[in-house]
Amino acid sequence: MLDHLKDYNIILASQSPRRYELLEKANIPFKVLVVPGVSEDFPPSMAVDDVAEFLALQKQNAYKQIWSNPLTIVITADTVVELNGKILNKPLNRLEALNMLNLLSGNRHRVLTGVVIKSAEKEQSFTVVTEVWFNQLSNSDIEYYVDNFEPYDKAGAYGVQEWIGLIGVREIKGSFYNIMGLPVAKLYEELGRF
Amino acid sequence: MLDHLKDYNIILASQSPRRYELLEKANIPFKVLVVPGVSEDFPPSMAVDDVAEFLALQKQNAYKQIWSNPLTIVITADTVVELNGKILNKPLNRLEALNMLNLLSGNRHRVLTGVVIKSAEKEQSFTVVTEVWFNQLSNSDIEYYVDNFEPYDKAGAYGVQEWIGLIGVREIKGSFYNIMGLPVAKLYEELGRF
Repeated sequence: MLDHLKDYNIILASQSPRRYELLEKANIPFKVLVVPGVSEDFPPSMAVDDVAEFLALQKQNAYKQIWSNPLTIVITADTVVELNGKILNKPLNRLEALNMLNLLSGNRHRVLTGVVIKSAEKEQSFTVVTEVWFNQLSNSDIEYYVDNFEPYDKAGAYGVQEWIGLIGVREIKGSFYNIMGLPVAKLYEELGRF
Repeated sequence: MLDHLKDYNIILASQSPRRYELLEKANIPFKVLVVPGVSEDFPPSMAVDDVAEFLALQKQNAYKQIWSNPLTIVITADTVVELNGKILNKPLNRLEALNMLNLLSGNRHRVLTGVVIKSAEKEQSFTVVTEVWFNQLSNSDIEYYVDNFEPYDKAGAYGVQEWIGLIGVREIKGSFYNIMGLPVAKLYEELGRF
């Protein structure tokens, strides 16, 4: 229970409906506020493991007017999918989505979410990593998924909570909800001592 | 896609609404049929790792009249929660639920689901194991969960898809949906070659 934060406004700075759903199910009271035009660029030499947290920190800069208010906490997050050292972004079209899922099929990849919790007085940031193993997927499975679920808003071209996650993800190591975009248990723990 | 089974009746022999939900999301067509009075006993000397599959096999005996029909497949499953070599059953009352969650708090446990797929001609059985690590839970978290979610129909006294799973499960190793009671990806794979 996060009773010590009950006088605070908790702002989730995200457009992701999966993140709203997870915070709601975790019973953490929050409002959504999205400042448009935040840069998603990062230095090309940056280590893949640092990118998600860097982008979440970048987002906080755009929210200075919000977290400068008393009794206000802003949560930013960024999720990155990494395969063989390369980052998979959101697929731009059907072909890119099919190609990404073909790359993930039968392989292990990693999902990294960087989270920053910020108020006028404090800042706490962390990255949570989950490893994911996909079964070998057939072409018809991949095409069925892309055509019916249109995963164009999802890094790596899949949602683990959707059909492809149920039938295709054999094993994970780490937080499941982190794959959906928010490592809720770690966030709850960090809010507990914020 | 399970096109080679499209002329079959797939029967799920389970009362668990979580299992229905998972098979539905996996897009596997099925009907539910529950034969009452199936024994849940197992030999006391049996190794914990063998119990779930043994119980799933036992259930198939009660469904002989069903799977003896042509073009019929019966799926049975049993899920067992193991902590330090001992099986945690469904909690009988509030105190038992609180005690179980206190045992799981801050510890690693295992969830084992045994599954048997059976027709008149074939039988395939397997067990899927997932390791689960809970954060240290506060007494108020545990009481809040038990009083609001009443986990009396759940082995180990928790649902990983409910509030306590979101805020409390730090990490897993294995299949997430197995913790909910059905290792869907493995089942899909096995049905694919059944």
